[in-house]
Amino acid sequence: MSDVRQLAIAYIEKNKDRFLTDLKDFLRIPSISAEEKPDDPEIKQAAEWLAGHLTGLGIEHVQVLPTANAPVVYGDWLKAGKEAPTVLVYGHYDVQPVDPLDLWITPPFEPTLRGENLFARGASDMKGQIMASLNVIEAIMKTGQMPVNLKFLIEGEEEIGSPSMDAFLHGSQELFTSDVALNIDAGMIGKEEPTITYALRGLVYFEIWIVGPDHDLHSGLYGGVVHNPAQALCELIAGMHDQEGRVTLPGFYDPVRKLSDEERADQARLPMDEAFYLEQTGVPNLWGEPDFIPAERIGSRPTLEVNGLLSGWTEPGTKTVLPGKAMAKISCRLVADQKPADVHKQLIQYMEENAPDTIHWEVKLLQKNPPAIAELDNPGVVALGKALETVWGVRPYYRREGGSIPVVESLQRMLGVESALSGFSLPEDNLHAPNEKLHLPTWFRGMEALVHFFYNMR
Amino acid sequence: MSDVRQLAIAYIEKNKDRFLTDLKDFLRIPSISAEEKPDDPEIKQAAEWLAGHLTGLGIEHVQVLPTANAPVVYGDWLKAGKEAPTVLVYGHYDVQPVDPLDLWITPPFEPTLRGENLFARGASDMKGQIMASLNVIEAIMKTGQMPVNLKFLIEGEEEIGSPSMDAFLHGSQELFTSDVALNIDAGMIGKEEPTITYALRGLVYFEIWIVGPDHDLHSGLYGGVVHNPAQALCELIAGMHDQEGRVTLPGFYDPVRKLSDEERADQARLPMDEAFYLEQTGVPNLWGEPDFIPAERIGSRPTLEVNGLLSGWTEPGTKTVLPGKAMAKISCRLVADQKPADVHKQLIQYMEENAPDTIHWEVKLLQKNPPAIAELDNPGVVALGKALETVWGVRPYYRREGGSIPVVESLQRMLGVESALSGFSLPEDNLHAPNEKLHLPTWFRGMEALVHFFYNMR
Repeated sequence: MSDVRQLAIAYIEKNKDRFLTDLKDFLRIPSISAEEKPDDPEIKQAAEWLAGHLTGLGIEHVQVLPTANAPVVYGDWLKAGKEAPTVLVYGHYDVQPVDPLDLWITPPFEPTLRGENLFARGASDMKGQIMASLNVIEAIMKTGQMPVNLKFLIEGEEEIGSPSMDAFLHGSQELFTSDVALNIDAGMIGKEEPTITYALRGLVYFEIWIVGPDHDLHSGLYGGVVHNPAQALCELIAGMHDQEGRVTLPGFYDPVRKLSDEERADQARLPMDEAFYLEQTGVPNLWGEPDFIPAERIGSRPTLEVNGLLSGWTEPGTKTVLPGKAMAKISCRLVADQKPADVHKQLIQYMEENAPDTIHWEVKLLQKNPPAIAELDNPGVVALGKALETVWGVRPYYRREGGSIPVVESLQRMLGVESALSGFSLPEDNLHAPNEKLHLPTWFRGMEALVHFFYNMR
Repeated sequence: MSDVRQLAIAYIEKNKDRFLTDLKDFLRIPSISAEEKPDDPEIKQAAEWLAGHLTGLGIEHVQVLPTANAPVVYGDWLKAGKEAPTVLVYGHYDVQPVDPLDLWITPPFEPTLRGENLFARGASDMKGQIMASLNVIEAIMKTGQMPVNLKFLIEGEEEIGSPSMDAFLHGSQELFTSDVALNIDAGMIGKEEPTITYALRGLVYFEIWIVGPDHDLHSGLYGGVVHNPAQALCELIAGMHDQEGRVTLPGFYDPVRKLSDEERADQARLPMDEAFYLEQTGVPNLWGEPDFIPAERIGSRPTLEVNGLLSGWTEPGTKTVLPGKAMAKISCRLVADQKPADVHKQLIQYMEENAPDTIHWEVKLLQKNPPAIAELDNPGVVALGKALETVWGVRPYYRREGGSIPVVESLQRMLGVESALSGFSLPEDNLHAPNEKLHLPTWFRGMEALVHFFYNMR
């Protein structure tokens, strides 16, 4: 058995350059998703590129399946036999928007090697991760026998919270029935710290509009008698946290599942201490709930963040306008057992109780995904943990992750499929930010680990 | 004397169509000023158009004089004799920016008549006002004898606070020596309420930057340990007013000159009550310092306004970013005897005392103009008041104005020239907002009043 693993790993070693060329081709497709655009040509192009690649690998029944928004790439290979487990390989081929564009050192869709890193939007999140899986499947198929049945679910709207996934899965439950989903969109804590993620935060995303006067006013002619909507918005946002950084939405923390002592010990083992976050972010001091260590604040506690602010004159120079309206994008990361719909109600209640009668307000719900928490004794999770330990030589870190991967909760709830969550993106890879990159030595180690994962599954 | 006045008024009546055509030509030049742009071709074009028009009227020594920023149009006509007073006709040919452009019913630089109104950026503020003065000068010159000497000072940077005016006047004091400045940039309270403005608020304009992490972060991976710069900005802005709408900058109100009982009576006479401001603005309720009536809050009390907010993702849809920085444009309207430099210090002190140690901050000073207050017994002010009363049949309203016209303070301080301040723009003319307009019947009444003003000066 060890031999076939080594053969696959040697195949990967030998084909490094071609794998990099393939990845670059994939990265050149600017498949951004920032809002629902059902017929986006670049989203379609990325889906078709992937379908072609799967077909080339010998995957069968490859299809680009329509959803209400971006299509899902499906395929399967079921020749391992009825006894063998079926692994659902998950991925998303869409990427985050690229602005502010002027902060990119090289253009986001011109993949560029600098040192050990490949820079491009999607390099790490997660086109590089998808290609790691596909390269490993190719290596195993070319050098031995794939020990499991395979299905593929590669979506194109993860970066906007997979708005069509539930409706899509609802009609295709049989197609995606599997024993475990392999999801390597969850990253790792550091180069030498392989990581299994067992919980993901949910997300509920709002737009808040404050409308005061029915048109922009001259700040000299009206300033003093009108509640400035930008000011009113700031006052409302300021009230959403108390002095110690706790969210003040009514009942916000009530359903939050308490951390067990074992979990707190696991969190304390994570090498993500204050110094780590200070270095990663460059902030002068950390912030947040005083009763929790940083790793807990990120993975186990819900948050409320301002994602965007817009009002009035924002170009260079001065305009003495009293803006007619002001907008904020605000989102909450949720943990077990919070429900997005409840948080929506809590925000409405907060606004009802706190918005002054000098302005009008509106809350728009843009996205909602429940949090997810996985079982650690799932065979897929065990196989993946063992694989990581074989390559890195340390027991993986088990963490609750701050980000959201809505499909994980959907697969669990709708199909009863648990996800084995890991990944080979690093905290310093600038996910969702300018100069996103993929650390190539870690990428290749990740492929080695996936070879072990597939063989561990049998 | 009454005869020559009637002749001039009849001339205006006869030339209405041409005056409108001239104004439209002037309005088509998009001479926007939003920041200092010394060689802006459209600013230059507007200056040259005006210079040509002045020359056509028989004004002498017409020149487009360079400043550090936008040029000043000068001209004079000194043939009324040494005994006659000299009136400095002031104006500004620059206009406000036009965004949000999508709210304009017709394009801002395509002047369009609808009913009694001419719609265009600058129609009221103040290309229409400039042309009213020039049309009256033409009418008097064609039908009688101009009773005063004339000088012209028409600038192109009023909308950004006349940053070059002081330096320009410093070198040209003799050129602009006059007995009174006629400044009709101050508008009127309503169609039937001719208005003399005897005080103008000053302005000090800032940009505040809050910088947290050194790059945009993923709100899932970092939300909870980093003080969100947009949130920190909102918290700081929220703290700049107390619960009752008073500005909290330390010492902000200390130098503010108290209103006399007579002034409070004059303010109470103004037809700008709560109902007026509710109708003008469309807000559900008014706001502001509880101890002052609306007219006092606008004219006699200083304010702090948010003119702009910008941070993170502001396009449609969602982006789960924790922004690296956040910006606000904030300005204070100042009243006698506040000093812009003091308010700048007060804001810095506020930030030093209130900004948390979790972020970095910077305050940039973009503009500063002291407030101005005029003598009511000045002969020019008296002549203008009488002229307004002749045409409208009521004693003018005397008010302190909320807006700022920096040149008024500069002329007073540097040349000892008082300004007679009035104007024929209406509160509903959408100054500094989409769909700016000029009410033509009021415009023509204004010209009639200016005929009387010039003859009253002798």
